[in-house]
Amino acid sequence: MPVNKKYSLDTMFRPESIAIIGASTSAAETGWVKRLIDFGYRGKIYPVNLKAAKINGLKAYPHIGDVPDSVDYAILNVPAQAAPQALRDCVAKGVKFLHCYSAGFRENGTLDGKRLENELKQIIKESGTRLLGPNCMGVYCPASGLTFSEDFPKEKGRIAVVSQSGAEASRLILLCQDVSLFFSKVISYGNAADLDAPELLDYLARDKATDIIALYIEGVKNAAEFTAAIRKCLATKPVVVLNAGTTANGARAALAHTAAVTWTEDKWHDFFRQTGAIPAATMNEVADIIQGLTRIKNIKGKRTAIVGRGGGIGVIATDICERAGLTVPPFSQATRKKLLEIRPDAGAAFRNPVEPKLGMEGTAEFYLKGLPIIDADIATDIILIQMALDIYGGHTSDLAQTVTDSAYALCAAADAIKKPIVVALFSGGHADSILAAAAARDILTKAGMAVFPGVESAARSISKVSRYRGFQGIKSVLPAAAFPAL
Amino acid sequence: MPVNKKYSLDTMFRPESIAIIGASTSAAETGWVKRLIDFGYRGKIYPVNLKAAKINGLKAYPHIGDVPDSVDYAILNVPAQAAPQALRDCVAKGVKFLHCYSAGFRENGTLDGKRLENELKQIIKESGTRLLGPNCMGVYCPASGLTFSEDFPKEKGRIAVVSQSGAEASRLILLCQDVSLFFSKVISYGNAADLDAPELLDYLARDKATDIIALYIEGVKNAAEFTAAIRKCLATKPVVVLNAGTTANGARAALAHTAAVTWTEDKWHDFFRQTGAIPAATMNEVADIIQGLTRIKNIKGKRTAIVGRGGGIGVIATDICERAGLTVPPFSQATRKKLLEIRPDAGAAFRNPVEPKLGMEGTAEFYLKGLPIIDADIATDIILIQMALDIYGGHTSDLAQTVTDSAYALCAAADAIKKPIVVALFSGGHADSILAAAAARDILTKAGMAVFPGVESAARSISKVSRYRGFQGIKSVLPAAAFPAL
Repeated sequence: MPVNKKYSLDTMFRPESIAIIGASTSAAETGWVKRLIDFGYRGKIYPVNLKAAKINGLKAYPHIGDVPDSVDYAILNVPAQAAPQALRDCVAKGVKFLHCYSAGFRENGTLDGKRLENELKQIIKESGTRLLGPNCMGVYCPASGLTFSEDFPKEKGRIAVVSQSGAEASRLILLCQDVSLFFSKVISYGNAADLDAPELLDYLARDKATDIIALYIEGVKNAAEFTAAIRKCLATKPVVVLNAGTTANGARAALAHTAAVTWTEDKWHDFFRQTGAIPAATMNEVADIIQGLTRIKNIKGKRTAIVGRGGGIGVIATDICERAGLTVPPFSQATRKKLLEIRPDAGAAFRNPVEPKLGMEGTAEFYLKGLPIIDADIATDIILIQMALDIYGGHTSDLAQTVTDSAYALCAAADAIKKPIVVALFSGGHADSILAAAAARDILTKAGMAVFPGVESAARSISKVSRYRGFQGIKSVLPAAAFPAL
Repeated sequence: MPVNKKYSLDTMFRPESIAIIGASTSAAETGWVKRLIDFGYRGKIYPVNLKAAKINGLKAYPHIGDVPDSVDYAILNVPAQAAPQALRDCVAKGVKFLHCYSAGFRENGTLDGKRLENELKQIIKESGTRLLGPNCMGVYCPASGLTFSEDFPKEKGRIAVVSQSGAEASRLILLCQDVSLFFSKVISYGNAADLDAPELLDYLARDKATDIIALYIEGVKNAAEFTAAIRKCLATKPVVVLNAGTTANGARAALAHTAAVTWTEDKWHDFFRQTGAIPAATMNEVADIIQGLTRIKNIKGKRTAIVGRGGGIGVIATDICERAGLTVPPFSQATRKKLLEIRPDAGAAFRNPVEPKLGMEGTAEFYLKGLPIIDADIATDIILIQMALDIYGGHTSDLAQTVTDSAYALCAAADAIKKPIVVALFSGGHADSILAAAAARDILTKAGMAVFPGVESAARSISKVSRYRGFQGIKSVLPAAAFPAL
């Protein structure tokens, strides 16, 4: 980490003024100036462009030095060749944080790219200015109105993301929005010429607005610093890590993406085992784990009750849960007896997995009458509801209504249930089924329920969350020596 | 198998007359009579109901014996207790095939259920009538208008399914319909008291209307018969097997579902190794493999070129492919040089994975100009296109149009490409993104392209299809002794 850390990262997340160097005058596409205006950034915006007098209704300045005010944050959108001089100008102006959006540095594998990046590093080293990037999307902080897409949600949340990939960070933001989860701070940091994961993590460990941290990382430059920062986070909050580029050609792809030198699978394995960070293989899995960490509360064990229509679907769900490290034991005799009272014809279908009555109406009824009985079962730690919309066809005209009714019935039932409930909600690809599923997901997630797109993702999330909670328990009684530096 | 196999299964799939015993008079729900009428069954339908004179506009008969015509196929929809007498009446009438829809037999774990099922078996044994079920959904054969859901597609296709689960069979039908794939024959056979997998498979092995067979199976009663039937199928067509209930509690769930005694994971492992049947863990995977088998043609190896927006997404996709047993090698120098001619600013982004220009428009342009160059690359066997709709936000008003345009551009480009192309098409959960993705999927799959919901499913399908093709090659040169009976 550089020695002259003059400015707190607070300023990067909540800048009072932003300059856009190389502000776009294109009417066809959204540039950084319009993006910030549209998203509702309330600080001062200073477009810098040699040729334009006004950009998106704001006075433009030919040069950063002409801006009449101090500049907390600048976004650099000029060709890589012009970046070193623009950075020097920013340093001269006293810009505190510079986000270099431009690409074409070390990651492109040319001597020129490497030389340009080294030049940026040298300029930064001798200055008080901090550099984010190059080759990155920058910061999304809904609390301050800073964003790299005008389409991101304006809602604030308690998840922070540190990502070497802007596209994967964007996917995570949208995947979480889909299940009503939002963000405190997202940082896309690209080549990490200056600001790198350890420093960002160290800040987030202390950030009171952040409860969960997700990390997409290709390259670790300093293992000791990185591991120390992860441990500092883990002392108070979970960290989910998507370690990218760990296969042979994945490593080659990462080198071409952010000039990162990746760790091997083995090294990551040791890292996860020794820190208790939660590993994920894809961004969808990161989103699933975040949802589980947020919404699966008070989980005491891995004994899972499965409720849903379709006998074969229940068998497959059982196999999936057991393979994911959960267990689907039979209910106690007392539970079976009580369940059979509400549906005497069910026979063996009430042993776990449980099949409610046929039809979505029967399902809704079962939520209200049957779930309290399962909640009281001594052999059950968590309830997994399968809402499969396409059972036996199902594209009926009243599909949307019955699915919505089921979702509300489940919310009503859940209020009286003490054990965690998790929903696997899925449909085939018909537009009406998909939209009905999306509407149900909205109802359920806005009520705070964990909803996953399938049994596999639900089971994996439950398993990882329950392991994380177990690890937290173990960690507190082990001596520090059990977690040596990597 | 019973000794008196008097009737060809042809009659079960193409009955000229169907009797519904216990035909529903409910106005609220669709019964079997209305289902067959709505689906367009063109044979004679005879509702049998003690109290009704007409059902769905058709004359009803109080008793199967009163039907004035011969009956090829009867559907039994009466309580389990009444099933033996109804079956005796059908035998007396000379009904050729009886589908027992009713449940409440051996699968419900009671002595009564076991006794009732044994009674059915005994009656069948002494008759010429064949029994499908009990506890199953029966037959879907779009060519003859026979179905167990009025919502199933009327289109004929070349996939056959043999399934102990009606719900999982239904899911497969809809999952395949979503990617424009259709069926020759689907049989949900439940408890298999008479007609069982070996006999059904033996028929499908010889069925000229069937190219691919999928099997959902919980219990194998006779390993030698089952394996022989599978081998007979595999001699001319691929068989995908979803073996359910292989975990400890999955086995218990299967016993409660279809009274099946399941094989262990180990036994299935040996079965797959020795037969070359293709294993699948979920019905979604079965659908993915079927699509791969149908549409990934002339695959020469596992070297995969990845094309799509988002550098980090490309890194993760590379990891996923390599973990699935594929490889993502760098392009040849010649290929890179040609690619850089069409986008000189790309730098390292043109090494494989390939990132086209920003924006979906740039992607469409790349399909037409870039794919022919990759097609000619000597280190590439297959091209995997990532169409990720939510990159960097993306819920713009013209999303549907640009996505549709990209899909048509890809179809146009694909016409000139010799190597197989596979598409991973996914979006976040916004309604507009989902509908745009569904529209693109329709365009692509109707043009015969393989489209998967993610890189994981695409990579798994490519890998399994390529292994199956390899196995077929090996099999032909091995002596029969290499495939001993299990």
